[in-house]
Amino acid sequence: MATKPSTPKGTRDFLPLQSLKRQFIFDTARSVFQQFGYVPIETPAMENTETLLGKYGEEGDKLIYKILNNGDFLSKASEDKLAAKDSNSLSFEISDRALRYDLTVPFARFVVQNQNELTFPFKRFQIQPVWRADRPQKGRYREFYQCDVDVIGSDSLLNESELLTIVDEVFTKLGLGDIVIRLNNRKILSGIATAAGMKEHFQSMTIAIDKLDKIGPEKVKEEMIAQGLPEAGVKKVLNLIKLKGKVDDTLRMLAGAVVGVEEAYKGIEEVKNVIKALPERVRSKVELDLTLARGLNYYTGAIIEVGHKDFNSSICGGGRYDNLTGIFGLDGMSGVGVSFGADRIYDLMEDKNLFPTSLKASSDVLFVNFGPAEALACIAMASEIRSVGFSAEVYPDEAKLKKQMKYADSKGIRFVMMVGTEELANKQVTVKDMITGEQHTVFQKDISSFVIDKHQD
Amino acid sequence: MATKPSTPKGTRDFLPLQSLKRQFIFDTARSVFQQFGYVPIETPAMENTETLLGKYGEEGDKLIYKILNNGDFLSKASEDKLAAKDSNSLSFEISDRALRYDLTVPFARFVVQNQNELTFPFKRFQIQPVWRADRPQKGRYREFYQCDVDVIGSDSLLNESELLTIVDEVFTKLGLGDIVIRLNNRKILSGIATAAGMKEHFQSMTIAIDKLDKIGPEKVKEEMIAQGLPEAGVKKVLNLIKLKGKVDDTLRMLAGAVVGVEEAYKGIEEVKNVIKALPERVRSKVELDLTLARGLNYYTGAIIEVGHKDFNSSICGGGRYDNLTGIFGLDGMSGVGVSFGADRIYDLMEDKNLFPTSLKASSDVLFVNFGPAEALACIAMASEIRSVGFSAEVYPDEAKLKKQMKYADSKGIRFVMMVGTEELANKQVTVKDMITGEQHTVFQKDISSFVIDKHQD
Repeated sequence: MATKPSTPKGTRDFLPLQSLKRQFIFDTARSVFQQFGYVPIETPAMENTETLLGKYGEEGDKLIYKILNNGDFLSKASEDKLAAKDSNSLSFEISDRALRYDLTVPFARFVVQNQNELTFPFKRFQIQPVWRADRPQKGRYREFYQCDVDVIGSDSLLNESELLTIVDEVFTKLGLGDIVIRLNNRKILSGIATAAGMKEHFQSMTIAIDKLDKIGPEKVKEEMIAQGLPEAGVKKVLNLIKLKGKVDDTLRMLAGAVVGVEEAYKGIEEVKNVIKALPERVRSKVELDLTLARGLNYYTGAIIEVGHKDFNSSICGGGRYDNLTGIFGLDGMSGVGVSFGADRIYDLMEDKNLFPTSLKASSDVLFVNFGPAEALACIAMASEIRSVGFSAEVYPDEAKLKKQMKYADSKGIRFVMMVGTEELANKQVTVKDMITGEQHTVFQKDISSFVIDKHQD
Repeated sequence: MATKPSTPKGTRDFLPLQSLKRQFIFDTARSVFQQFGYVPIETPAMENTETLLGKYGEEGDKLIYKILNNGDFLSKASEDKLAAKDSNSLSFEISDRALRYDLTVPFARFVVQNQNELTFPFKRFQIQPVWRADRPQKGRYREFYQCDVDVIGSDSLLNESELLTIVDEVFTKLGLGDIVIRLNNRKILSGIATAAGMKEHFQSMTIAIDKLDKIGPEKVKEEMIAQGLPEAGVKKVLNLIKLKGKVDDTLRMLAGAVVGVEEAYKGIEEVKNVIKALPERVRSKVELDLTLARGLNYYTGAIIEVGHKDFNSSICGGGRYDNLTGIFGLDGMSGVGVSFGADRIYDLMEDKNLFPTSLKASSDVLFVNFGPAEALACIAMASEIRSVGFSAEVYPDEAKLKKQMKYADSKGIRFVMMVGTEELANKQVTVKDMITGEQHTVFQKDISSFVIDKHQD
């Protein structure tokens, strides 16, 4: 191979320190989820193509990575599709499997397939990569991790409250407690459409509203009118969803504007109940945001989006979806969940320097290698140091001291320990503290107590 | 979708308890690796097809899952290959990416691509899934995890010793300390071939030897002779590799049989040095096994295979490979590593009931839901219980008591806590210990101390 090898476009290697930091985010989330009684599951990277297809809309389908059947895949392909070079429809004949696009559809499949093994309400979390054939750009990758937490099999609004509490706890533990939780409800949006006389235009209305952030209210208005939505209705909707301020006041104003629309009342009631069951520290971070639509493809109740005051994009989002497993033939399963954006959280924590300094891609101790006999003494001491909970390594090669010191330095190892001819004879170690520059002479038998003592300094 | 959805053949879902147990294995391995100064890396699931192809032999290439290019992939395909329905060669034109087949080749690619960011010797571990289009059978899957630990950029034999020590430590921590470490060296095998006058038949010889376990020495002998290997040589080889017993004695006998063959001496010296640097507790588990060939496709020195007395198959294996990164244009990087067989280790631990009982897919505490006001009191108490390190959940729905008790029972939750009208008025909780059957009345303010106390019982 002539050229330097590389990862495919849109995918990444993670270097040691990056891996440790990612692991820290996942471990933190996992520990919170488990304290609330959520349990982990894993699903395979590949799903049967038919499991995924048609679940993400036409655009989504195009972004699914299909896996070529092994063996003589062409022997089963249709002659006419081959002749017509019809890539799209041929792809389904030569790819029985595809890479998962998100964790939600595989979760629905999992629940239906394993329903007899599960206890409902089933509270699960899942932290796994997903793949999308999207155009790569800053912060958007073709392989990225999702971190989903959902309850399925319960329509109690206590689940929404619990999830918001979990969201707050995870971000607080990560040092990102300054979040803003934006809350909306599809029933309110749908009620607003009805109140504005645009019930039948609900779909177009929400698609347009979803663009408010990007193109602003004027353009959204133009778009709706261009699509044939009644101007008076459009104006009313845009005025209503602008309502902001304290949640209680906003809900009261809203209630006044949707008099007689049952569905809107129901949505307002739901929002009130979700907020009521929140601890005060979480409640204070919740804002009602009636412009929040989040595509709405399967949300039926609460819509949730979490932002941070120092960051533009959303770092977590989700909502209530009734009947998600219906697509796989199991009806009556209401679910609600949120998904954490691991990559964005990573970037934000990196920007704000929030990762613990204890995360380091190196050992606490390096023993310099001065030769076979000396190395054997060091191996024994390294083992003792590990047995009291620290990490230690012996440089494997009898390289020049300068090279070994450089290794310790570039890895950020704190203690460099040296056993040369003299130390070997005297059963001693010369220890250099790379932070303070101090040098100590320690008896070999005292080496692990030395590390413990120094660590407590 | 009419039929019940399922995972693709050869792939699996992991239910909560399975996921927790797998996580336990990985966490245990990770903690040992890190104590020895090894650091984690991650590589993408997809590699460029050309990165993987030709690295695993012809058979291996067929087992690589290729990912269909998105968009109009047929427009770039050769007319003649399409017309000839030549699936194999067409597959390379329509699949730029493929799923990784192991972690070794991606690691080599990683080292070459990121060489300027790494400090050598580079000691890394990697725990990620791999995919192979193998025929699924008991214990063999199309998606499975590998757990690899390697040192690259050092040819010191201390690395081999350290890896064997790590292997012993991981298995001891998992309760599988009764391992047998089988050690061989390619230089010894190659020296034996030379001593038996079969230097030019080395490849065929090792392929045949590799089958000893499966078909026995008679059939192996027949196979070698049928392939045209000299009968006298074949007999000599089969006699030599039978040598067993204490490592020192065996090496002495072997040395007597390969007089004058430099390469064999070198291999014997290497084995001696690897064993010399082992702690006694590990040394006692090492056996020299001259029949160990492990395909040998890239091993150049030590060959390692780890078994357990209660298990037929190997649970860990590896070896030394000089110049692994040479395939990507970076020469002079010697490496050595081992790979843990996570699925087999899981099965063995399950058989022997070795997973800690503290691993459970449930909470410590369930609060029964008797209605909105009661639930609010419970939510506050659950939060307190979590703050002292236990897991607690509030049943989300106001369901029948029987149903809620059944939920607690089937999830194995120990404490069921009840706040009904009376308890709400008296600021109390009725606690049922599902293990002992005892019932307690506790003041709500004392609830977290109660859980702490009971946990220490």
